[in-house]
Amino acid sequence: MQFELSKEYRERLQHAVDNHDDAFIVQTLEGVNSADVSTLLNEFDTDDSKYVIDLLDPEIRAEIINDLDEDTREKFLRAFDTPQITEIVNYLDSDDAVDILNELPVKEREEVIAGLDNQEKEANILDLLRYEDDIAGGLMAKELIKANVNWSIDRCIEEIRRQAENVEKIFQIYVVDNEEKLIGKVSLKKLILATNEKRVEDIYETDVIAVETYMSVEEVAQVMRKYDFEAVPVVNVQGKLLGRITIDDVVDVISEIAEEERQIMSGISEDVEEDDSVWMLTRARLPWLIIGVVGGFVSAKFMGVFEAELIRITAIAFFIPLIQATGGNVGIQSSSIVLQTLANPSAFSESLVRRLLKVLLVAALNGLVLALLVYGFNMITGGEISLSIIVSCALFCVVLVASFMGTITPLILDSFGFNPALASGPFITTINDLLGLGIYFYTVHLFLS
Amino acid sequence: MQFELSKEYRERLQHAVDNHDDAFIVQTLEGVNSADVSTLLNEFDTDDSKYVIDLLDPEIRAEIINDLDEDTREKFLRAFDTPQITEIVNYLDSDDAVDILNELPVKEREEVIAGLDNQEKEANILDLLRYEDDIAGGLMAKELIKANVNWSIDRCIEEIRRQAENVEKIFQIYVVDNEEKLIGKVSLKKLILATNEKRVEDIYETDVIAVETYMSVEEVAQVMRKYDFEAVPVVNVQGKLLGRITIDDVVDVISEIAEEERQIMSGISEDVEEDDSVWMLTRARLPWLIIGVVGGFVSAKFMGVFEAELIRITAIAFFIPLIQATGGNVGIQSSSIVLQTLANPSAFSESLVRRLLKVLLVAALNGLVLALLVYGFNMITGGEISLSIIVSCALFCVVLVASFMGTITPLILDSFGFNPALASGPFITTINDLLGLGIYFYTVHLFLS
Repeated sequence: MQFELSKEYRERLQHAVDNHDDAFIVQTLEGVNSADVSTLLNEFDTDDSKYVIDLLDPEIRAEIINDLDEDTREKFLRAFDTPQITEIVNYLDSDDAVDILNELPVKEREEVIAGLDNQEKEANILDLLRYEDDIAGGLMAKELIKANVNWSIDRCIEEIRRQAENVEKIFQIYVVDNEEKLIGKVSLKKLILATNEKRVEDIYETDVIAVETYMSVEEVAQVMRKYDFEAVPVVNVQGKLLGRITIDDVVDVISEIAEEERQIMSGISEDVEEDDSVWMLTRARLPWLIIGVVGGFVSAKFMGVFEAELIRITAIAFFIPLIQATGGNVGIQSSSIVLQTLANPSAFSESLVRRLLKVLLVAALNGLVLALLVYGFNMITGGEISLSIIVSCALFCVVLVASFMGTITPLILDSFGFNPALASGPFITTINDLLGLGIYFYTVHLFLS
Repeated sequence: MQFELSKEYRERLQHAVDNHDDAFIVQTLEGVNSADVSTLLNEFDTDDSKYVIDLLDPEIRAEIINDLDEDTREKFLRAFDTPQITEIVNYLDSDDAVDILNELPVKEREEVIAGLDNQEKEANILDLLRYEDDIAGGLMAKELIKANVNWSIDRCIEEIRRQAENVEKIFQIYVVDNEEKLIGKVSLKKLILATNEKRVEDIYETDVIAVETYMSVEEVAQVMRKYDFEAVPVVNVQGKLLGRITIDDVVDVISEIAEEERQIMSGISEDVEEDDSVWMLTRARLPWLIIGVVGGFVSAKFMGVFEAELIRITAIAFFIPLIQATGGNVGIQSSSIVLQTLANPSAFSESLVRRLLKVLLVAALNGLVLALLVYGFNMITGGEISLSIIVSCALFCVVLVASFMGTITPLILDSFGFNPALASGPFITTINDLLGLGIYFYTVHLFLS
């Protein structure tokens, strides 16, 4: 039953496009899910894709464009004129329509909005354009089903029939009072099972959980995940029902956050994928590598200061990788644990001082074990006692400092509104490498003088 | 409207538990969402939590236990006897019931199943126990609403009323033929809007997308995300409808996968959080740190072999951090891009040879820029020409090798069924560090001899 996205079909479709075999295109794509068509069209160049979707039904066309990858879509929209984009926007839910409008130049966006024939949709879109896309308001759609608490069940079902034309998926019916304030919810199931003599006020549930427009998308995701919601109503500060957020958008947000975190942690500055161009891949990676190289060069100059010590005891150099690798590992572990807490905030958090004390306790324990281990290794393999003591002492200090830095850095980044994952990225790692090297050579210097 | 999880309330509740103030507990928790009660009880010790939930309605009690953190719940279940657990399992959907049964000792599990009063539920649970929890079969619930294609709309609504007792959320009605094979779907909305004279076969849609029992949870998540599903039906190889997977379970899986990846990448071996004990935190971190220390120690011994060269030109040591940091950064970037592709597989993938050629091209470009940069730095700061050439050549080689290793390692890990994120973790990173050091000293050796 599932449409087969095969290489063979892709080639046959390319052939059909090249030869303007419209019949083949229309027949084989008839009834295919728009998400599958989008996956397919992401592989074609813009002109060929446009040729294909121009042959399809306008409603399907709108859905396909809505499902396209963001960068494919941007190229795509440039190939359409204003009336065509207006038609697409007309078919979409308000939240998807706003996403597309935000990708257009300001002038074209205004023209599209002015060209909409549905006044309610125009008002909805103008309302949604006000919100940034990283808060609940920017994620919500205006389309939802609501019922006044004073309605009868019959009137309610009648109104739902009318409203349902604009709403693809219902989930819950939100119950509002005469001031449009959200006061409860009714499930469609309960409505169907209710007898007709009853009224909305007899069957609605008052324990409705809503999010407010200014809440961050991360908070919205946490609420929906905690309560297993498919949709959550959005209210303003007065409690007035403004829209709803559906789980499909939140799933995308969760996945994007995870991908962004991975990119930041590994030092990739743009949303690149394996099939992007060599140029794009290089551009996304080189800046972070240069930071590392500059850090390495500063390390080299720094060590130059201690050349006298190095000439006296060459073996000092042997332990540089050990010190740096351990410092790096401890720092990334510590940041990762903080990221975990920031991603799943506890309702009852400890004070910062208590948290840091605990971090340092864990670090002291780890540092002690590692220092003893290295001392043991050194003794077994016939290392010099004084150097062994220096290395173990420096290692212990590096573990403590790296734990502290690894914990405090993501917290500071987060409090200034930066992504805390940056603490595990190359920039902070480079600084920590330098710090570790500094501690090691300072320890060497102290012991030798 | 949302229950306020405050520290004050937690303290008042603790006080009420200590003084057996049952009235306060029952009154303040009345009507509170079970997810909120679970969040609260995760903070209490097992005896106190049990005291609280024993006061609540059995159905609410089952939901609260279902919502608890896994480790809190395990402690919890040990405090209940078999009849109490049987009562809890009776109230849960089959998928949640199986999750709890899997946490019990085998003997107790068998007793609970034998004690279930509902034969259909017993059969459902026995069926689900067969599946591993990382495939579609292990994620599905048996509860769903289905309609035979030959039914009238009236009969269909009648049957839904009957079936709906066991199904909390409906989403879609799945349409089956007389052999129970899944052949389509009808939305509840469409059913309500249909006139009573029609039959299911007149209004159902045939383009239903299903997953098969053996599909991995990652694949299920990809399907649901791609098609914006709230629920997806699960069929066996013959196409027979067996159950459905709801989005709430998939959202949890997506979040867990992201968290697991972060833990593996940063070298944390267990699912620890900041509020776990010092002992647990140390145990989760120390093994990975020891790997790094052993690697560092091997580096030290390796450099010992080149002591003669180091004594001749001490400045060789200065560039160890630069070589290692760059190798590490390049390796992690490369692995991250492969992880991205594995997480979002393209329908049309390139051959491995082409992919590797592209990786090496990007690496050569990056390596060239970095090598020239380091050479330039060295010249400006009055470095020795021969050493500068050695460092730049070694750096170029390290970038190439690290790119290759960073790309091939996650692919190999994945093909052997390991988590490909291990490629960015401390173990592989330690091996790559050694490799980088080896390349550097081999280059030094070549030039000097």
